[in-house]
Amino acid sequence: MTRGFPVGEFQARLARAQDKLANRELAALLLTTEPEIRYFTGFLTRFWESPSRPWFLVVPAQGKPIAVIPSIGAALMAQTWVEDIRTWRAPNPTDDGASLLSDTLNEVAGNGQIGIPSGPETYVRVPQADWQRIKAATKGDIQSDGGITATLRAVKSSAEIEKIATACDIAGRAFARVPEIASEGISLAQVFRNFQGLLLDEGADWVPYLAGGAGPDGYADVISPATERPLADGDVLMLDTGAVFDGYFCDFDRNFAVRTASATARDAQARLIDAVDRAADIARPGTTALELFHAMDRVVTGGAGGSDSGRLGHGLGMQLTEGLSLIPNDHTELQPGMVITLEPGIETGPGRMMVHEENIVITEHGCRFLSPRAGAELEVMR
Amino acid sequence: MTRGFPVGEFQARLARAQDKLANRELAALLLTTEPEIRYFTGFLTRFWESPSRPWFLVVPAQGKPIAVIPSIGAALMAQTWVEDIRTWRAPNPTDDGASLLSDTLNEVAGNGQIGIPSGPETYVRVPQADWQRIKAATKGDIQSDGGITATLRAVKSSAEIEKIATACDIAGRAFARVPEIASEGISLAQVFRNFQGLLLDEGADWVPYLAGGAGPDGYADVISPATERPLADGDVLMLDTGAVFDGYFCDFDRNFAVRTASATARDAQARLIDAVDRAADIARPGTTALELFHAMDRVVTGGAGGSDSGRLGHGLGMQLTEGLSLIPNDHTELQPGMVITLEPGIETGPGRMMVHEENIVITEHGCRFLSPRAGAELEVMR
Repeated sequence: MTRGFPVGEFQARLARAQDKLANRELAALLLTTEPEIRYFTGFLTRFWESPSRPWFLVVPAQGKPIAVIPSIGAALMAQTWVEDIRTWRAPNPTDDGASLLSDTLNEVAGNGQIGIPSGPETYVRVPQADWQRIKAATKGDIQSDGGITATLRAVKSSAEIEKIATACDIAGRAFARVPEIASEGISLAQVFRNFQGLLLDEGADWVPYLAGGAGPDGYADVISPATERPLADGDVLMLDTGAVFDGYFCDFDRNFAVRTASATARDAQARLIDAVDRAADIARPGTTALELFHAMDRVVTGGAGGSDSGRLGHGLGMQLTEGLSLIPNDHTELQPGMVITLEPGIETGPGRMMVHEENIVITEHGCRFLSPRAGAELEVMR
Repeated sequence: MTRGFPVGEFQARLARAQDKLANRELAALLLTTEPEIRYFTGFLTRFWESPSRPWFLVVPAQGKPIAVIPSIGAALMAQTWVEDIRTWRAPNPTDDGASLLSDTLNEVAGNGQIGIPSGPETYVRVPQADWQRIKAATKGDIQSDGGITATLRAVKSSAEIEKIATACDIAGRAFARVPEIASEGISLAQVFRNFQGLLLDEGADWVPYLAGGAGPDGYADVISPATERPLADGDVLMLDTGAVFDGYFCDFDRNFAVRTASATARDAQARLIDAVDRAADIARPGTTALELFHAMDRVVTGGAGGSDSGRLGHGLGMQLTEGLSLIPNDHTELQPGMVITLEPGIETGPGRMMVHEENIVITEHGCRFLSPRAGAELEVMR
């Protein structure tokens, strides 16, 4: 797999953004978060883990993006297609890029309106004190971008889909090797550590996300850290990973029975797979997010309208979760190139559940599985 | 190592915060980000990787914290010492917790002022559109907390220091095994994958951060992703990790020469260690961040005032980097319990550098190394 993208990919993203800027009469976009800045530049680094420095990208209505970034990032940004790179030595408690940014905005946008991502999943990655200062020193009004960036990111290019597919292949190979690292008597915490090792061994660049659970016939929730409790006969073990290849996520899970699979667990597995199949059957351009929700919800709750986990799937790509939600009130229509998860859950007992998740891409006439599809029969680890 | 903290730890954090709330006449703190919410609750999950749902914690001037969170987090939050847990089914495009939060703030704070973290390294993890709505529906004024949370977090308890020390021990054991996975002909990308595996093997819960570089006598920058270029005779390999144990980071690096160490590289290593020693010599309560900076800068640049990387160390703890910066204009005084990195860098050629990093904790009369101190002699991998 090649790394990065040809420049044409970024030119196309920019052209689409500038069309939308023109429609909304915005003079520029201002971006402050990792996926949004990466989307327009290709700037890929794990350094975002450090919260200490703000980073800015200005996407003007005409011309190429302008990076306004800490000098520690200049060498890496210079390897992208961005040419106009303005830096300051950060952190600087007296002016951490605020004046450099507002000067740049004033130069690029004048009195024109400046859009920032303001909808779901977005935030302004700037301390409030600095943000007030930036707004005061910027001539143009800073307002919502009307979802420009989110809308563009929701539909993946074929190059992006290939990266997600590679991440899915890596995780698929790691899941196939789970019986090597998990069996009766091994703690869930140890399984978590070793499964991350398998993902790296199979080619993941890193493993930003791992969740899971284990218990008789299921688990209490899907976001708790692993405990030292050893796996026991009759447990259902679930592992759910967001592994990354070249900046793109997979996000799917697998269930395994430890030695013995109860009728309850086997039945739940079969129904979860059936639910995924029902959604995949209707996943095509024009189908809505809520229709996918109901197709699965009919199977897993008999049509009760879902559960407290809140959704039965979501978009994915540069982030573990992004874009649409499979919930009763998301009317988003599927389009070719959208990559989403199908993630039904079933209550298997009081305070106990099983969940299953696959990743698909919407094609011209249907959908294609990116994750290696699990079978209706629950895998038993002897 | 025990996991989590006794309830007394959270009671003490809350009592200190409420003292400061009273001093500032704030009726409550409002927190929206992972480390801040975890600091007052112990709520530990990798689910924050998903940007799709906002999470809130209200710390009132009297009484225990109140969690206002998506229902998917209720089971895990119920395992913490928090009792008042208010949930909504998220994501919800029409009201994603905004009304539940403002109702809670109005109940708790009335017309009183509400503090939010607003200084360096903070942000409001809420979409702008929702944030406007929350502010409009909240009776009290929402303003800066004056750094309450940052000030408290800067000084670690002995239980917190033990967790950071454990993370340092884990990484120390992994660094000692680098010659198992790195040698001439192996690509840096493969070394990155395998080093993360070593960290997990030695007991890391996960590896949120890994950076590094390799090249003759040093590397061009310290934030780029690994390339497929194989390690070559004469390269200096640097690996810098933020590995996590029970929610606390280490953050230090090591340099290794591949087969042959040049005089330039050996000299740089010796000077880097000397710089760390000079800082450690004066690291005690009352010493300022800028004094540590100058102690190292005298050794690495002859007192030129630093370089574009911007700082020669920083605080660490629940985040890879947090709190003070070792820069010429940070006047923060060290206090017992502060955990910081010493991170000098040397230019070894045009566009080429070597960096070294250790972790220390400030004690009553000096400091103690938490990372296993590297020697002045550059380790050569045959």
